[in-house]
Amino acid sequence: MTIVLSEPPIPVMDSARDEAFCEQLFTALREATFDGVGITRESFGAGENLALDIIENAATAQGLDTERDAGANLVVTLPGSDPGLPFLACGSHLDSVPQGGNYDGGAGVIAGLAILAGLKRGGFRPRRTMKLLALRGEESAWFGKAYMGSSALFGRLTPDDLATQHAVTGRALIDCMRDVGADVDRISRGEPLLDSKSVAAWIELHIEQGPVLVARELPIGIVTGIRGNVRHRTVECIGEAGHSGAVPRWLRRDAVFATAELITHLDRHWRTLLERGRDLVITSGVMGTDSSEHAIARIPGNVKFSFEMRSQSQETLEAFYDLFVSECAAIGDDRGVEFRLDRRLQSAPATMDPGLVEKLRVAARDLDLPDEPIPSGAGHDAAVFANAGIPSAMIFIRNENGSHNPHEDMKIVDFMLGVAVMRKVLAEAAL
Amino acid sequence: MTIVLSEPPIPVMDSARDEAFCEQLFTALREATFDGVGITRESFGAGENLALDIIENAATAQGLDTERDAGANLVVTLPGSDPGLPFLACGSHLDSVPQGGNYDGGAGVIAGLAILAGLKRGGFRPRRTMKLLALRGEESAWFGKAYMGSSALFGRLTPDDLATQHAVTGRALIDCMRDVGADVDRISRGEPLLDSKSVAAWIELHIEQGPVLVARELPIGIVTGIRGNVRHRTVECIGEAGHSGAVPRWLRRDAVFATAELITHLDRHWRTLLERGRDLVITSGVMGTDSSEHAIARIPGNVKFSFEMRSQSQETLEAFYDLFVSECAAIGDDRGVEFRLDRRLQSAPATMDPGLVEKLRVAARDLDLPDEPIPSGAGHDAAVFANAGIPSAMIFIRNENGSHNPHEDMKIVDFMLGVAVMRKVLAEAAL
Repeated sequence: MTIVLSEPPIPVMDSARDEAFCEQLFTALREATFDGVGITRESFGAGENLALDIIENAATAQGLDTERDAGANLVVTLPGSDPGLPFLACGSHLDSVPQGGNYDGGAGVIAGLAILAGLKRGGFRPRRTMKLLALRGEESAWFGKAYMGSSALFGRLTPDDLATQHAVTGRALIDCMRDVGADVDRISRGEPLLDSKSVAAWIELHIEQGPVLVARELPIGIVTGIRGNVRHRTVECIGEAGHSGAVPRWLRRDAVFATAELITHLDRHWRTLLERGRDLVITSGVMGTDSSEHAIARIPGNVKFSFEMRSQSQETLEAFYDLFVSECAAIGDDRGVEFRLDRRLQSAPATMDPGLVEKLRVAARDLDLPDEPIPSGAGHDAAVFANAGIPSAMIFIRNENGSHNPHEDMKIVDFMLGVAVMRKVLAEAAL
Repeated sequence: MTIVLSEPPIPVMDSARDEAFCEQLFTALREATFDGVGITRESFGAGENLALDIIENAATAQGLDTERDAGANLVVTLPGSDPGLPFLACGSHLDSVPQGGNYDGGAGVIAGLAILAGLKRGGFRPRRTMKLLALRGEESAWFGKAYMGSSALFGRLTPDDLATQHAVTGRALIDCMRDVGADVDRISRGEPLLDSKSVAAWIELHIEQGPVLVARELPIGIVTGIRGNVRHRTVECIGEAGHSGAVPRWLRRDAVFATAELITHLDRHWRTLLERGRDLVITSGVMGTDSSEHAIARIPGNVKFSFEMRSQSQETLEAFYDLFVSECAAIGDDRGVEFRLDRRLQSAPATMDPGLVEKLRVAARDLDLPDEPIPSGAGHDAAVFANAGIPSAMIFIRNENGSHNPHEDMKIVDFMLGVAVMRKVLAEAAL
């Protein structure tokens, strides 16, 4: 017989009840924000408001405290016995892309609410306060900028950001934020609405937006980092147009053949780096010959393409960028073409807190679940929290068909496993 | 002392006088058909009519016989003493693309006129009749179809061809042909306007439309054949779109990377075939991701591109086509994409008459000129004559900046060397 003396008990999770509770909430969100094709929860707009209200009402019904913060985000609180300690935070965002899916963002908010509600119902008395943040404005689809809600929390929206116009209505972001009740005076001054020192940790549960967990037949994954990127929106390969029948190979400066060789060489380097264990993905999403002059019987003198590399490691990004520039020069020399690069754009990788990641992996193993470490290729609010100095981590839930479409397909059974892992880590950290 | 008994003399060429004569004619053509930017001589239209009139008046002034044939082409004749023999023909076309150059086509007509005029002036009495054909309607720019004038001569215009509409006015080809005086009843019936058995040979002088002679520093080249082609207007590479950050390499079905690998492999095969002495050029002139769904941060699920291969050898075309299809299948399997090919289009290569080619090469060497054999990548009326069973050959003149633009740049000194070679072969064959 083992007697635990010092730790107050963590109530046992009632999985069936929690699952029913979550299913109800997913249904409520879906019904309120279905647009006939998919889910539309406009950032700082009507659908997002509806979603916040649904979650707030459910939290209140569970006897939890709720409030709206200065960024107009919903905050649900389970107070701790020692309010002087930094609090534990979890959550995600409630907005969606137009005609998107119900789980992207919503899953993390519902997970947090189920955990706080279950712990409260079980009579759990945490030492540290636990909070769920249901954030606004994470999707870039509406204003061309992502993480607006979490960025506002840390005073990271610039005047340019705030002047960005809504893609449909043209209304400025600052006006839309004011409409939903945000303190735009403080936000405009770049004043933090949340003191990062007051937050002990941020844990975000989210559907995986890629296919890795599906392919590996794993229900969940523990995110090790959020990939940063280096991008050129437009690389222009300038060769020389010519008659497709009359110019022999040795006199050609074919922009398509040069670009194809560049991509093929970069693909080879990519494969090599992966074999050495580096984290990297590369993409050329937009490519085309010049429609004002191209023709089937004309050697293409011009190709434009975008190029993006993403990695959890800044070092890998820089190393691959060097390879990219050097291949452009070498192939340019070899083929008599020039690759002109526009402005280099970048965003830094965000590292998840190693201690918190380890806690999540241990919790997963304790629950007899796989503890697969996985990078996040997509960006998340967790990157903003991490870059504000808050120890952050994420749990990914297996999901088919990607995200940003009505076909995203997370199974509730996988979701509940992620909830169990998050619950264990949050509750233990709150003791 | 050598006494030539059986051959009547070929008059010595008065190069200075011929050059002045040709310069005058080039100037007259340019002045009459300059459009402010380049040269415009509409097929079966105003500019072409002007050009035919200028050449006809010049021919008449030299005492040569002229007439318009049933295709409304201009025919200039130096009668032979034995009119029962098949005649020797030379010439080219007098139309141009919109805002084109003065030499494309015009050079071959002026060359022929200078030769007939010079021979007549020298008192040359050929046994065989010699004719210059100043053809209409070679350029595809106006009706989307090339070689209309020469095709009409051999009864090779279909009702579909004749119904083709003018790119600007929408007027049918048959109506435009009638406007300039062609016998459209005979042409519609597919009746040959010229008996191919009555033509002993066709020699066409033309500017090179590629850069080979410039690059090799050769003033002229002797054409060995006119490349045929096999084309797909649209090959579609179908992969799977996905989040550019969230899908790892092993789960990607990236249409751009697959297409780049295909092009790179084909480029390697091309190089190998060239090293083995095969004649081949390959081009993908039009390429692009799908603008309705592509994005910098999206793995491209679709790329469309054109693909064309050209060779003087049908066997090489077929061999390379097999490689193309086989690479599409292999890369498709390897990368989980599918290459969908639209209808295969083709036109057969035309072989220049080996005997006639050899005569031109011997003549060039006799005149201390290079006798470089060179393929024609562009199509020419000579292909129509050759495919009608008439022994045909071509002389290319060095020309900078390609063709179909106002910057084509043939030097009169190079041109006169080509004229000399053609004159020698025609005159000797007429004896």
